[in-house]
Amino acid sequence: MADQPRATGRRRGGGGAARRAERTAVRIETARYIERNIPNFEILTEEALEIIEANAETVLAEIGVNFVNNPGALELWRDAGAEIVGERVRIPRGLARKLCATAPSSFTQHARNPERNVVIGGKSLVCAPVYGPPFVRDAKGGRRYATMEDFRNFVKLGYMSKWLHHSGGTVCEPTDVPVNKRHLDMLLAHMTLSDKPFMGSVTEPSRAQDSVEMCEILFGKDFVQQNTVMTSLININSPLTFDDVMMGALEVYARNNQACIVSPFIVGGAMAPVSVAGTLTQVLAEVLAGIAYSQLVRPGAPVIFGAFVTSIDMNSGAPTFGTPEASQILYGAGQLARRMKLPFRSGGALCASKLPDAQAAYETSNTLNTALMGGVNFMLHACGWLEGGLVSSYEKFVMDADQLGVLHKMAEGVPVDVNAQAMDAIAEVGPGGHYLGCAHTQANFQSAFWRSQVLDYKPFETWDEEGARDTQALAAERVAKLLETYRQPDLDPAIAQALDSYVAEKKASMPDAFM
Amino acid sequence: MADQPRATGRRRGGGGAARRAERTAVRIETARYIERNIPNFEILTEEALEIIEANAETVLAEIGVNFVNNPGALELWRDAGAEIVGERVRIPRGLARKLCATAPSSFTQHARNPERNVVIGGKSLVCAPVYGPPFVRDAKGGRRYATMEDFRNFVKLGYMSKWLHHSGGTVCEPTDVPVNKRHLDMLLAHMTLSDKPFMGSVTEPSRAQDSVEMCEILFGKDFVQQNTVMTSLININSPLTFDDVMMGALEVYARNNQACIVSPFIVGGAMAPVSVAGTLTQVLAEVLAGIAYSQLVRPGAPVIFGAFVTSIDMNSGAPTFGTPEASQILYGAGQLARRMKLPFRSGGALCASKLPDAQAAYETSNTLNTALMGGVNFMLHACGWLEGGLVSSYEKFVMDADQLGVLHKMAEGVPVDVNAQAMDAIAEVGPGGHYLGCAHTQANFQSAFWRSQVLDYKPFETWDEEGARDTQALAAERVAKLLETYRQPDLDPAIAQALDSYVAEKKASMPDAFM
Repeated sequence: MADQPRATGRRRGGGGAARRAERTAVRIETARYIERNIPNFEILTEEALEIIEANAETVLAEIGVNFVNNPGALELWRDAGAEIVGERVRIPRGLARKLCATAPSSFTQHARNPERNVVIGGKSLVCAPVYGPPFVRDAKGGRRYATMEDFRNFVKLGYMSKWLHHSGGTVCEPTDVPVNKRHLDMLLAHMTLSDKPFMGSVTEPSRAQDSVEMCEILFGKDFVQQNTVMTSLININSPLTFDDVMMGALEVYARNNQACIVSPFIVGGAMAPVSVAGTLTQVLAEVLAGIAYSQLVRPGAPVIFGAFVTSIDMNSGAPTFGTPEASQILYGAGQLARRMKLPFRSGGALCASKLPDAQAAYETSNTLNTALMGGVNFMLHACGWLEGGLVSSYEKFVMDADQLGVLHKMAEGVPVDVNAQAMDAIAEVGPGGHYLGCAHTQANFQSAFWRSQVLDYKPFETWDEEGARDTQALAAERVAKLLETYRQPDLDPAIAQALDSYVAEKKASMPDAFM
Repeated sequence: MADQPRATGRRRGGGGAARRAERTAVRIETARYIERNIPNFEILTEEALEIIEANAETVLAEIGVNFVNNPGALELWRDAGAEIVGERVRIPRGLARKLCATAPSSFTQHARNPERNVVIGGKSLVCAPVYGPPFVRDAKGGRRYATMEDFRNFVKLGYMSKWLHHSGGTVCEPTDVPVNKRHLDMLLAHMTLSDKPFMGSVTEPSRAQDSVEMCEILFGKDFVQQNTVMTSLININSPLTFDDVMMGALEVYARNNQACIVSPFIVGGAMAPVSVAGTLTQVLAEVLAGIAYSQLVRPGAPVIFGAFVTSIDMNSGAPTFGTPEASQILYGAGQLARRMKLPFRSGGALCASKLPDAQAAYETSNTLNTALMGGVNFMLHACGWLEGGLVSSYEKFVMDADQLGVLHKMAEGVPVDVNAQAMDAIAEVGPGGHYLGCAHTQANFQSAFWRSQVLDYKPFETWDEEGARDTQALAAERVAKLLETYRQPDLDPAIAQALDSYVAEKKASMPDAFM
C-alpha cells in the first residue's frame, strides 16, 4: 500500500537480494483495469445512429479529407480505390468502414511487469493520467513552467496511484529539456520509475522510431514485434485534415504493430459544427478515414476510436468542459465505436478551472461519470488535468486518481447472490434495530463500501481543530506523503544501463533544438 | 433575468399598477421542470429485480413492519387483511402492492403562479432545494446556527434560481423561532417571497393541518380539496418502523389529497444491510408498506416512492455521499419505482464535505448525474446541501443550482433533424477550415451550448488580475448580487393580509416551545 511506513525500506544490513525483498514489501497496490459489469448508456436511437453513419459516408465520399505533405499516403489511398485530387482524398461509400474491419476489437498492451498488462477494448476501462500540459501547479509553488523534475514526480505519483492502470505519456511538458531530446528523457522515466504500461512519442516520426527502439531494449526485439507495448496518441487536425507529422508517427507505430489512438481533437463550434449530431458526423468521418489509413499501412494494427471533444463558451471563445453537450457527444461516439467493434477512447478529468476547486470537481465528475457510463475503454487525462489542459496539477492528480476508485466500484455492478440479498440480516435486526453489529455486517463490512484516501470524513470538531482544511490542502499532504514513500520498482541493471546508453548516444548525436 | 439592473424597480412616480408593471419587468426567469428525452439507466437485470421484489414481499409477510403509537393505523391494516401482533403489521404477499395500485403514476403540484406548476412522475424531474439543516455557512460568516433571516434568504435565492423548479420546505431550520411556531413563518415565507411550489410541515400532525389551512387561504378552499398544492416529506424510521408523528402528518395530507414523499432514510450499514441488494429489498418493503398505508387512508392520494440512501465510512461511522454504492442503490430504486408505476424521489446535491470545495463538488456531481440518469422525478436537496445535511451553504446553493442547468440540457437528448445534422456546415467549412463564422454557427450558437452563470471561463491573465478567485468566491459574489436584486413577486394584498393574520393568531394561541 502507498501509505505503508517508510521504515520497511530503511532497515540496515542484508545484501542486494534482501534490499530487493524489502522493496517488494513496500510495492504499491494497483487495481486491475476496470471490467464493466454494468450496461452502457445509449443516448442515440438506432435511427439517429443510422443517419449519422450515412452522413459520415457522404462527408468522406463528397467532401473528402486532406492528407497533407504525404505523397505515400495518397498513393496508398489511390491503390485502395479512393479518388485523389491534390491532397484531397474522397473515399467511396463503404470503403473506409470495410478497411477498418481488419482492426482488432480488443488488444493487450504489455507492461514490463506482466501484472500491469492492460486489455483495451470490450468491457474494459483503462485509466491513464493527464497528457500534454506545459505548466504545472501545486498549492505551494503556484503555476509555473513544467520541468523534467515535475515529469518524474508525476510518473512516480502515477506509479503509486492504486486506481491508475497506465503511466501515460507526456504527463507534463518538460520545458527545461530541448524539444528534440525530451521524448528520450520522458520514455526513460516511464520505463524506469514505473512498471505500468506507457505511451510513445508522436511529435516526429523519428521520435516514434526512437520509442520503438527503446522498447526493444526494455522488452526485447522479438517481443516488441509480436506484442503491443505502447499506445500512442495520434490527433487528427480537425476538421478533416491529417498532417504528415502525426501520420508519420502513426505509420511507424502501425508498421511495428504498436497501438495508436486515432483521435479528432475538437472544440465544438470551432473545429466542428455547434450541434451534437453534426459533430458526431464529423468525428465518425475522421475516425473512419484515420483508422482505415492505419489498416492500409498494416492490416490488423491495433487502433482505438478516439473522440476528444469539448464545447466552447460562445461569449469568450474559451473551451469549456464537463458540459452537457460534451457528454452527449461522448455517449454518441461510444455507440458509434461499438458499432464498429473498435476500442473507444474519450473522457478524462477534464475541466476549465484554474484551481483544483469546486468548479474543477464539478466539471471533472461530469466527465468521469459520462466516460464510465459511455463505454470508454481508454481514458487519457483520467487525473491531474487542470485549466483546459494547460496545467498538470499535483493536487488534482491525487484527487482525481482517488475518484477513479468510484468508477471501479460502480463498474462492478450489483451482486444478487444469497449473501448480497442479506435476508438473514434483515430478519436478525428486525424493525427498529440497527445493523452495525449484526453478523452479516461483520462478515462484509470491509469490502462493502468504497473509501476515499483523500477526502475528509472526520467529525466537524476534529476537522476544525486540524485546521479546517479544504480538499486541495488534504491532497497536498497526500502528494508529499506519496513522493516521500516512493520506491523505484526493480529493473534488470543491464537493461537500465542499456537504456541510459541509448539515451546518452541519441542526445549526443544532435544539437539541442527548442522548436 | 436575475442579473437585470436594480434601477428598473426604483423609478419614481406612477401608482400601484405602474409599480406592479415594473416588478413584472424584473421578474426572474425559471426553466420549466425537466422532461427527459433520454433513456433511464438500468443497472439491475430483470432477474435481480424479481429476486428483490420477492424478498421484499417475504420481509413484509414474515418479518413485518411496526406502526408505533398508532391504533388507528393498526385498525386499517387489520381491516385490509394484515396480521397484527402488538404494533407489528405482517402484510400477506401481494397485498401491499395491490393497495399501492390506486396511487397515481403522476400528478401536478400547483403553484400560486400557474406557470410554476410542476408535473411529478413519468419523464419529469422537479428540483427542490436542501431540506433540514440546523446550520448555515457562508464565506464571510462561517458556520453558525440558522435563523429565520437565513431561511428567507434561501427562499429568495430559490425563487431567483433559473434551474430550480420548487421552493422546497425547511431550506434551513430557523432556530431563532420557537419549534412549535416555526412552520408558520416558514410557510409564510414560501407563500409570499416566492411563487414556486412548496412543501408542508410534517413535524406534528397539527402542523400539517396548519399547512393545509394556510394553503386554503392562498389557493382557496375548494381548489385545495381538488388539487395538490403541497408535496411533503414523510420519512420512514428505518428499519421497518413507521412512527406516529410522521404517519399522523401523512394521514392529514392524504385525507386532503395533498402529496407525500414516502421515504426510507437510510445510512447503509446502520439502518440497512451493508449490501446494495439487501438495502434495496428493505427500501422496497418499507415503501410498499408506507404507500399502501397512504392508500388505505385515501385511495388515490398522490404519493412518491422515496429513497434517501447514503453509505457509511466503516472506519469512523460517518455517513458518506457521492459513493458508488449510493449510486447503485439509486439506480436500482428507480427501477423498482418504475415497475410500481410511481413517481420516484432520490438524489440531491449530497456531500459530506464541510466546505463548498472540490470534495463537495465531486460528491455532488456524482449524485446529480446519477439522479438524472436514474429517472428521479422529484429531487430534494438539489442545491445548497453541505456537511452531510447539517449545513445549508449560501455559496453551494448557487453553485449547485447552476449545475442543475447541466441536467436540463443533458435531458433534452440529441436532435437529429436536418439543422442538427449540419451537413451544410461541414460542406461549407471543409477540410482545414473553421466553423466560428459559418452560416450554421451564426444561426445556432445562441442555444447551442449550456453556459454557467457562476463558473469561470476567463483567460488566465484576466482571472489572475481579478484576484485568482476560486468557485466559492465567485459564488459569494453571485449570492450577494441575487439578494440585492431580489424583488418580491406580486400577491393579492387581501391574501397576504389573511395569511399574516392566520399566523399571528396561531402564534398567539400557544406559548413558545423549543422542544
